[in-house]
Amino acid sequence: MAKNLDFVLLLDCYGELLTQRQKEIAELYYNEDFSLSEIAQMQAISRQAVSDSLKHSEQFLMQTEQKLGTADRIRQIRNCLEQILVSCQTENISEITELAENGLQLL
Amino acid sequence: MAKNLDFVLLLDCYGELLTQRQKEIAELYYNEDFSLSEIAQMQAISRQAVSDSLKHSEQFLMQTEQKLGTADRIRQIRNCLEQILVSCQTENISEITELAENGLQLL
Repeated sequence: MAKNLDFVLLLDCYGELLTQRQKEIAELYYNEDFSLSEIAQMQAISRQAVSDSLKHSEQFLMQTEQKLGTADRIRQIRNCLEQILVSCQTENISEITELAENGLQLL
Repeated sequence: MAKNLDFVLLLDCYGELLTQRQKEIAELYYNEDFSLSEIAQMQAISRQAVSDSLKHSEQFLMQTEQKLGTADRIRQIRNCLEQILVSCQTENISEITELAENGLQLL
């Protein structure tokens, strides 16, 4: 199973909708970078149970993103603010204004 | 029942997690400004059923916001972008930079 960085953001957006156990396992895997075997040992469950829990959580997080799109919104706003910081370096006020106005449209 | 503008944002954030019927009723009430009686007529249900559906949806939306906080995040980012636009008028680049950096911290 390859760790997908997108799930870090999805977990941040929707993790509280998972069960306590699912959330714990997903956080250990995605945020704290433990392996499946390490998590299995910590939670006193089989490696397969950890893998199943993660697959279930990932599916739920993706389905929730398809419905709500919060992670996509956050990515776009982050991009907008980063572009504003670039335009600050060249002191391009009209570009910053346009970026901020476009950012507000996303909200 | 007084219409609460906060629910417009909550509905925008989490409306897709309601049932189709609940979402329709909430949108007619909050986004299209129909009265309880008008919605009852349109949906061919009692005024009480519309009221119950709205109360149930509002409770669900508030509980989801307590868990996920997306609406609060969006409010803070909106405020940040509006402040950036104000600082654009006075061409205060250092203030804009600080605001954009603080905005990124919220995401």
